[in-house]
Amino acid sequence: MEIKIMKNILDRNQNKADEVREQLKSKGVPMLNLISSPGAGKTTLLERTCEKLSNRIRFGIIEGDITTDRDAQRLKKYDVPIVVINTEGGCHLDSHSISRVLDLFDLESIDLLIVENVGNLICPSQFDLGETCKVAIVSTTEGDDKPAKYPMLFRQAKVVVLNKIDLLPYVNFDISSFRSDMGKLNGSVPIIDISCTRGDGLESWYEWVGEQVPGVRQGFRGY
Amino acid sequence: MEIKIMKNILDRNQNKADEVREQLKSKGVPMLNLISSPGAGKTTLLERTCEKLSNRIRFGIIEGDITTDRDAQRLKKYDVPIVVINTEGGCHLDSHSISRVLDLFDLESIDLLIVENVGNLICPSQFDLGETCKVAIVSTTEGDDKPAKYPMLFRQAKVVVLNKIDLLPYVNFDISSFRSDMGKLNGSVPIIDISCTRGDGLESWYEWVGEQVPGVRQGFRGY
Repeated sequence: MEIKIMKNILDRNQNKADEVREQLKSKGVPMLNLISSPGAGKTTLLERTCEKLSNRIRFGIIEGDITTDRDAQRLKKYDVPIVVINTEGGCHLDSHSISRVLDLFDLESIDLLIVENVGNLICPSQFDLGETCKVAIVSTTEGDDKPAKYPMLFRQAKVVVLNKIDLLPYVNFDISSFRSDMGKLNGSVPIIDISCTRGDGLESWYEWVGEQVPGVRQGFRGY
Repeated sequence: MEIKIMKNILDRNQNKADEVREQLKSKGVPMLNLISSPGAGKTTLLERTCEKLSNRIRFGIIEGDITTDRDAQRLKKYDVPIVVINTEGGCHLDSHSISRVLDLFDLESIDLLIVENVGNLICPSQFDLGETCKVAIVSTTEGDDKPAKYPMLFRQAKVVVLNKIDLLPYVNFDISSFRSDMGKLNGSVPIIDISCTRGDGLESWYEWVGEQVPGVRQGFRGY
């Protein structure tokens, strides 16, 4: 019985996700779904991204949070349209909540929609939001075993961002073991090593973001 | 309809949790439920705890993991009875799975049962396992805003362990803001600052663990 209900929930989610995807496609707006553990650096990465690219890419941001609008407050200064979805205890966003907030954006004047999902390495990977692709963010301080232990997200991600590489000298993180586990799960996926605080590798990330946006894909270099 | 089903699931979980609690109480075995984000240091804390205390306290360990037995492998060398529950994608343990594995332990010869829940700051806090208390573990690298953003666990925890304080010089973590948020959520809860890698604060943790075990509560000092 529970399984049937879960299947219904997933079916309903999938139907709405397909609808969201169609809607965004008709407007030519790609959508990234950022997923990570709590504190891996999703919001800080968004801060850097808005800082660097918002003069070339017109972003829209959906902030998924359990109860506060703290992340949105941090992004307010970049003058980017932001909508907060409070899940009130819920452990992930779903396509129905995304669908409901899409109308709050002027999609005609947005190049790229970015969803910051609730901080959780498990449940968000099970719910398609209608995104163009999932972005997995993981930090060196979480340990190199995360892809092997939480494989669902890492199998689906179109890009993996390894954050906090400035802390590598101070933590127990075997980068070759991490890469080897990732290779087994999702061989072709690019892994971008970055430090949001120190700036390492962010150029590669900006370049990857640029490549997701049809309009600015050409001649994007030189940001 | 979904809400009703969710209520049924929670009711069934609660009934079984009460049963587990009664069973453990009748044997005089307390049970700790360790909850944190992925990579906050639950397993490393268990390694230190077994290393230091397993000659005085007879532990039993239940390892909740999505798919691997990596954490159990790390603990094997301490010669402590360990049972792994693989949730096969599930984001939390529930009382039914705990109830099923209790029979695999000889409860007569265990002083303290420790459950390492699936790495997730959200869902595990919603499922009572029949534990004596929840232990919240959070690391400095996750940021000081975790109690405010993920309040459910921090409201329920009987103790909060702040791990990775050796990394404080390298991360953006305001310890007074963390303590102030914790105070608002759960004023009386003790917060134990530790570094599992460097050893800071572990004596306070060992002492707290000792206090949970009726038999060794008296004269526990001097470990």
